[in-house]
Amino acid sequence: MNCELISVGTEILLGDILNTNAQFLSRELASLGFNVLFQCTVGDNRLRLLSVLENAAKRSDVIILTGGLGPTPDDITKEVCAEFCNKKLIPDKESLDKIEAFFALKNTPMPESNKKQALIPEDAIILRNDNGTAPGCIMKKGDTGLVILPGPPKEMIPMFLDSVKPYLQSLSSETILSHNIRTFGIGESAMSEKVSDLLESANPTVAPYAKNGEALLRVTAKAESREKAEALMKPLLDEINRRLGSYIYGIDANSIEETAVKLLREKNLTAAFAESCTGGLCAKRITDISGASQVFHCGIVSYSNEIKHRILGVSEENLSRYGAVSAVVAAEMALGVKKLSGASFGISVTGMAGPTSDDPDIPVGRIYIAATDGETLYLKELNTGHSSKDCRDYNRFVSASNALNELRLCALSYPEKRSEGTDIKEFINSFKEV
Amino acid sequence: MNCELISVGTEILLGDILNTNAQFLSRELASLGFNVLFQCTVGDNRLRLLSVLENAAKRSDVIILTGGLGPTPDDITKEVCAEFCNKKLIPDKESLDKIEAFFALKNTPMPESNKKQALIPEDAIILRNDNGTAPGCIMKKGDTGLVILPGPPKEMIPMFLDSVKPYLQSLSSETILSHNIRTFGIGESAMSEKVSDLLESANPTVAPYAKNGEALLRVTAKAESREKAEALMKPLLDEINRRLGSYIYGIDANSIEETAVKLLREKNLTAAFAESCTGGLCAKRITDISGASQVFHCGIVSYSNEIKHRILGVSEENLSRYGAVSAVVAAEMALGVKKLSGASFGISVTGMAGPTSDDPDIPVGRIYIAATDGETLYLKELNTGHSSKDCRDYNRFVSASNALNELRLCALSYPEKRSEGTDIKEFINSFKEV
Repeated sequence: MNCELISVGTEILLGDILNTNAQFLSRELASLGFNVLFQCTVGDNRLRLLSVLENAAKRSDVIILTGGLGPTPDDITKEVCAEFCNKKLIPDKESLDKIEAFFALKNTPMPESNKKQALIPEDAIILRNDNGTAPGCIMKKGDTGLVILPGPPKEMIPMFLDSVKPYLQSLSSETILSHNIRTFGIGESAMSEKVSDLLESANPTVAPYAKNGEALLRVTAKAESREKAEALMKPLLDEINRRLGSYIYGIDANSIEETAVKLLREKNLTAAFAESCTGGLCAKRITDISGASQVFHCGIVSYSNEIKHRILGVSEENLSRYGAVSAVVAAEMALGVKKLSGASFGISVTGMAGPTSDDPDIPVGRIYIAATDGETLYLKELNTGHSSKDCRDYNRFVSASNALNELRLCALSYPEKRSEGTDIKEFINSFKEV
Repeated sequence: MNCELISVGTEILLGDILNTNAQFLSRELASLGFNVLFQCTVGDNRLRLLSVLENAAKRSDVIILTGGLGPTPDDITKEVCAEFCNKKLIPDKESLDKIEAFFALKNTPMPESNKKQALIPEDAIILRNDNGTAPGCIMKKGDTGLVILPGPPKEMIPMFLDSVKPYLQSLSSETILSHNIRTFGIGESAMSEKVSDLLESANPTVAPYAKNGEALLRVTAKAESREKAEALMKPLLDEINRRLGSYIYGIDANSIEETAVKLLREKNLTAAFAESCTGGLCAKRITDISGASQVFHCGIVSYSNEIKHRILGVSEENLSRYGAVSAVVAAEMALGVKKLSGASFGISVTGMAGPTSDDPDIPVGRIYIAATDGETLYLKELNTGHSSKDCRDYNRFVSASNALNELRLCALSYPEKRSEGTDIKEFINSFKEV
């Protein structure tokens, strides 16, 4: 079944809003076996929306529209879709009651303009909105289904999961199943060359992707059933596992931090972070994972030398002699937060995120990451090579990814130590002036 | 001039990648006075890409394509565009040299597959890539310009800013200018009603948007020159300023944190955060701002009660009597981090981000935010009302926004105190058992 997404909203065309809805829906539809062949964004404009609907209805079995269901006069998606399907808009009592109740709950008077949100195209299936005031709906234009959803993700996502997903599942017969093999520490080209013969496979297909400093392989099979699709993929997955080995941090894992939290929980371990250039991003990413509180209790964002010394116990001599962006300061930060927190592992990040460097000897993109169990040090020097004026976000993100990956590798080998470790006290002492 | 964006990549249609390029380009094009009327995403598929190109060429003066310039066999954007424009692909010596130099710099052998990236359509303007291996190019199909850019944002963005923007500026005559009036603490509907008569203005236009718990008004004017556009907007901006007053945190500000950092720098103030449910997000957001190190030295992510007590000095009695999600613990956290850091202001966040609550008395979405200068407490209880299974990100983001806004309000009124403050020591003492 072919599906097309239409995002409606001038604010997307002006770049005010990042279109996360298209990503969410595409991912969901792929997992349901729908082919999303086109995504289109159009403004809150009747004629252009009609032209996009006409194109889409010719080539797609299902069209999913998001946005333009708000209370303001420029919100016209429902009106234009009703016109496109030759349907009238009719007031829906239950929708109006829900909108009134929504405002009552927030203890706010209902603006008059919200009333138009309770108008529904005749014969449409109404999709209730438990997180906002705009109901969605499902209509038909010939054989093509039109699914109309509100734009705000916090309203659209629950409505899709609760009401639209079951509707779509009832339409589809073929099963498409994918597995994402996620790696860290290898580039897309190098990864692709290791599996170049497998990339030519037709069913399952194997496709490489790169994003945010990571590379992944997506294996996708089409079959009559879930079981048959899994059986088709099994030999390929085994072969890829064999060739990529320790680069793989998870199959269908959402993120390194998710894998790290899972490993720590399984082994009853905890972690603490001491962050300089990442400024809290490691802590933020690990606490993105619901249930992180079992494995993460303490993060210190030590953005100045004084805080590195006073809270983490980094020596003032090393800070002034080697600078905050140095291997020995990274080691002292990791050891400091390990001791302060009592966690199983202390992980630190210090580096030059950019866009400019305040030290001529340290290029933008140089980052030191240290991990320790209190005895052994695992140290990584990273040179991202990114120093353009917009490099800061990238350097911070990749630094945090590397720190989280060091934590993952520590947890993975536990109770064994990793082979690349050195004695942390000896390491720190070796920097002392003789 | 009408412009259309075509994002090429099956990984976008599968939802593996969030299309941030479309947002970046749309924003840039709007600021240049180009109308982006359509954005389209299509897979790495010759026939479908040709069909999208044909549609776009009919209705647009400039088409900007991103993605599909990689070294792997599924990357076909340049090949299909050359076919569409009836041009041959010719090896470009300088591009090949740059690709070889890129790998040499990384100390990695060049994979054979990267050679095809040095093939360029004849007569095209070549766009050099200083951040990757794929050059871009500009071609013509009749009167329509085709701009072909690599997909990875870290390559696309500098190439656009350095090479494409000057090219586009040379094409356009009319000036479109916008100002974004960004507010915090008022909803989109309520804001729109305060300015409802202004929303009908034709030039300048005034349009309301809501995103991420904030509402903004965009004022846009078209004129012959920048100066005339500014003059058209001035009376409207003044009127909006008058009506929305203290809800406005900035005109054309990028974020609350940017405004907060700016205010703190101007007044030579510093801030420290003590975070529980936001888990480092406040620190991460403030350090997103380049130069934050002048105003931010210390963040404590105290994710467990033990760390709240041991590092921040929150009383064990209050933690066990009132729980970690309580007004008094928020106040003690803020005071604790203010003292520990020596910063001008201590800001704390503690709350139930969800998706589930471990305390029947505390609903998901209840958040306490405290700010203090060491003497006066500014306390905010937030009930986001969001408790669906995907509420966690939203609740954390909105909590951090509120905390950053409290910091902004403290810095804004400094050296005066804000009117809504109370004595922090009296407040904390009032919770003591008698």
